Amino acid sequence: MKPSLSIFREVLYHLPPTIARLQREAINPDATLAVNGFIKSIRRQKRVSFAVLSDGSHAQGIQAVFLDTSLTDGLTNGTSVRLTGKIKDSPGQKQDRELLVDAVEILGGCDPETYPIQKQTLSTEYLRENMHLRARTDNVSAMLRLRSRLMHSVMNYFNTQGFYFTHTPILTGNDAEGAGETFRLAQFADPQLDRPNQTSEFFGHPAHLTVSSQLHLEALASGLSRVYTLSPCFRAERSQTNRHLAEFWMLEAEWMDVNREGVQGICGLVEDSLKSYASDVIGGQDVEVLWKDVDEVRRKTLENSLSGTWARMTYGDAVKALQDAKNVTFEFEPQWGCTLQSEHEKWLSEIFIGGPVFITDYPRDLKPFYMRANEDGETVGLLRPDSSVREERMDVLESKMRKNGLGLGKHEYGWYADLRRYGGSPHVGFGMGFERLVAWLGGIDNVRECVPMPRWASKMLL
Amino acid sequence: MKPSLSIFREVLYHLPPTIARLQREAINPDATLAVNGFIKSIRRQKRVSFAVLSDGSHAQGIQAVFLDTSLTDGLTNGTSVRLTGKIKDSPGQKQDRELLVDAVEILGGCDPETYPIQKQTLSTEYLRENMHLRARTDNVSAMLRLRSRLMHSVMNYFNTQGFYFTHTPILTGNDAEGAGETFRLAQFADPQLDRPNQTSEFFGHPAHLTVSSQLHLEALASGLSRVYTLSPCFRAERSQTNRHLAEFWMLEAEWMDVNREGVQGICGLVEDSLKSYASDVIGGQDVEVLWKDVDEVRRKTLENSLSGTWARMTYGDAVKALQDAKNVTFEFEPQWGCTLQSEHEKWLSEIFIGGPVFITDYPRDLKPFYMRANEDGETVGLLRPDSSVREERMDVLESKMRKNGLGLGKHEYGWYADLRRYGGSPHVGFGMGFERLVAWLGGIDNVRECVPMPRWASKMLL
Repeated sequence: MKPSLSIFREVLYHLPPTIARLQREAINPDATLAVNGFIKSIRRQKRVSFAVLSDGSHAQGIQAVFLDTSLTDGLTNGTSVRLTGKIKDSPGQKQDRELLVDAVEILGGCDPETYPIQKQTLSTEYLRENMHLRARTDNVSAMLRLRSRLMHSVMNYFNTQGFYFTHTPILTGNDAEGAGETFRLAQFADPQLDRPNQTSEFFGHPAHLTVSSQLHLEALASGLSRVYTLSPCFRAERSQTNRHLAEFWMLEAEWMDVNREGVQGICGLVEDSLKSYASDVIGGQDVEVLWKDVDEVRRKTLENSLSGTWARMTYGDAVKALQDAKNVTFEFEPQWGCTLQSEHEKWLSEIFIGGPVFITDYPRDLKPFYMRANEDGETVGLLRPDSSVREERMDVLESKMRKNGLGLGKHEYGWYADLRRYGGSPHVGFGMGFERLVAWLGGIDNVRECVPMPRWASKMLL
Repeated sequence: MKPSLSIFREVLYHLPPTIARLQREAINPDATLAVNGFIKSIRRQKRVSFAVLSDGSHAQGIQAVFLDTSLTDGLTNGTSVRLTGKIKDSPGQKQDRELLVDAVEILGGCDPETYPIQKQTLSTEYLRENMHLRARTDNVSAMLRLRSRLMHSVMNYFNTQGFYFTHTPILTGNDAEGAGETFRLAQFADPQLDRPNQTSEFFGHPAHLTVSSQLHLEALASGLSRVYTLSPCFRAERSQTNRHLAEFWMLEAEWMDVNREGVQGICGLVEDSLKSYASDVIGGQDVEVLWKDVDEVRRKTLENSLSGTWARMTYGDAVKALQDAKNVTFEFEPQWGCTLQSEHEKWLSEIFIGGPVFITDYPRDLKPFYMRANEDGETVGLLRPDSSVREERMDVLESKMRKNGLGLGKHEYGWYADLRRYGGSPHVGFGMGFERLVAWLGGIDNVRECVPMPRWASKMLL
């Protein structure tokens, strides 16, 4: 099974260069080549006309120059064209290269009267309603490219740390959080049943859409030690905030805690990975486009957070700081034993610390059964994003599962207990909404603009 | 927004090396270090004992050598341990390096009487029933690492060709094939409705699980030109074959056909990409493990297919060849206008061609509405895997949609027609089951062994 690799290494097929490559790579200025794309804007003058051509591969597209202005007949915003000509360094300030056009082929016309993506600024809400065409706008296409780049960054980072990418199931009989609104599959009309309108479960028992891959990742980590996934998750939440989607993508990782670092190890890896993603994308043109209209304070906050070491504080200290806070009135009074509210987290990060902060050691009763209790028996290691040291002690886990009414049967949580019963060992993990990561690095307010085709309560287009 | 990258480039956190790294990288033979993992096997002799320690990062794990045999007290297969010692070059034949153990810490015991993953060979069916622990076996962990490696290969390949990775929606109002069994979400009890037991749709209209990302990718391609995804897809199929899962992952790509190459361009990219993935993984230890028990003929077939250029033939020629075939009896008689059966494809590839073959130019009526009809009006470009030139002509598409009863309303296919109405252009795409790719390169018979936690009719564990 070791054929000489050279026999099939040769590249057989190359797609023609995208505009991004034409803008970036060495070009023969005398070669005639064809560029496909759609017209973003067009400016007709007496002796020369200009158009911006985009194929979505590059934030600026490329400027097309028409010395024969009749070539632009029939070209309107949105028209798909094939332009043939030569690539030249641009004498203009705004772009590096331009295409001197010899010939135009119209591939698909576009009625300027009804085209939904007009040149003027379109509201976010309007673009959400025209979701099928919004990838043609500057901001949405920059977000999509950023997302793709981040996906590569995430995979490179975890690969370097010895993790394997895994695909955890979407359909499951479990509910990792032991609570919360989950989507459920409808039953099917069953041809094998005699009575009419009788329905049955396709899998023989109820199937839900996953809310988190954590428990499945723990099973895979019992074999592979370090695993992660970027997987769709689903919550049937009716809240209409700018941080919630019914369908979202979650980056989740699970690994054996070789050196028993506990939450401090999670903090280390999370901070390191986020800074690594940031260094991959910041300074790039897509991030420039996205941050163009974002206020200076937010920009400064991101920059600062990337240069310093991130703070870590316990929940107890956080509550104390909140209670001692001057010049601020909270809607919810901070109190030991209660969940930290968004307003509390915001104050801690923005005012008290002035940067990102990990909050650790939460009260045990606020958190799910799978989190390992600290030796004090009252708190569990935790931080934002949702992370924890997993409970690996069989007896403690079983008693907590019993208390939570989680059964140990075949279609219940017996398998999860087995992971401890047979050679379990200390392990940790975290989950992070991928859209929130895109929002953070892209300076985007609403997660609905951080995923190609968002779904939320009462809204599912396409 | 261009902070000096150096300010946050420093690596802050390193997980300790995995066994794969200890086997591969330069090691100080005098350094004492700790290795975590679980015991795969143990062999006790009078003066020295040996164990194979695995952390799932490496096909062979590492041999642990105990000169003090009392250190192995309490160690059984499946026990999780932390072994401390020195890494040495192994005098044995079977492994490169070994760990000379000074100290043992048992992290999680494992009752050898009830441990489901015994050392003897376990049947595939048995391991499916013990899905939560099967990642500890040689074959399943090799498959998981191969899957992860392939994921990297796929992303590298498409990145090189100028594609962007996108996340298409899982929940959708559409059904890309216009037919077939799809899963549907159950309705919710609606607190806003007065009557008891009244239910409603969470999104206001029915939601299905996606069967293919194609139509959504076409929308994104209208902005980004070249997009792909590796996304879960769902089919409520009751057939229990070794090629079908209810939940599977599909690699799908969609791109603008700049040079109007049509199906020949798809053939070029598919062949090139598959050979590229193969060259990334073949010769690696995981593939060696997986092919260990596969017969020589199959191995030879894969090797041959990687060295030659793949055949391309039209559906018409294929049917003629099938009709002229000697020394073979087909269950289904080959006939122009009928679907090619598996037995036909198998004969064409294995006997007639002796390697992979693309079949193009299928009869139009066998194929979905979105495929572009050839100029003869009777055939559509197509090949295996499922691929086609998309119908970009607005009038042709609309008439085909009408014929198929596909509405143009807001929650129907109006948006899909819009992609042609506003600057559409020639584009092509394909879809390929990721599990089938894993099966092909891993020499695995059944797709149930090509995904971590398979789901099929009546079967959904965990």
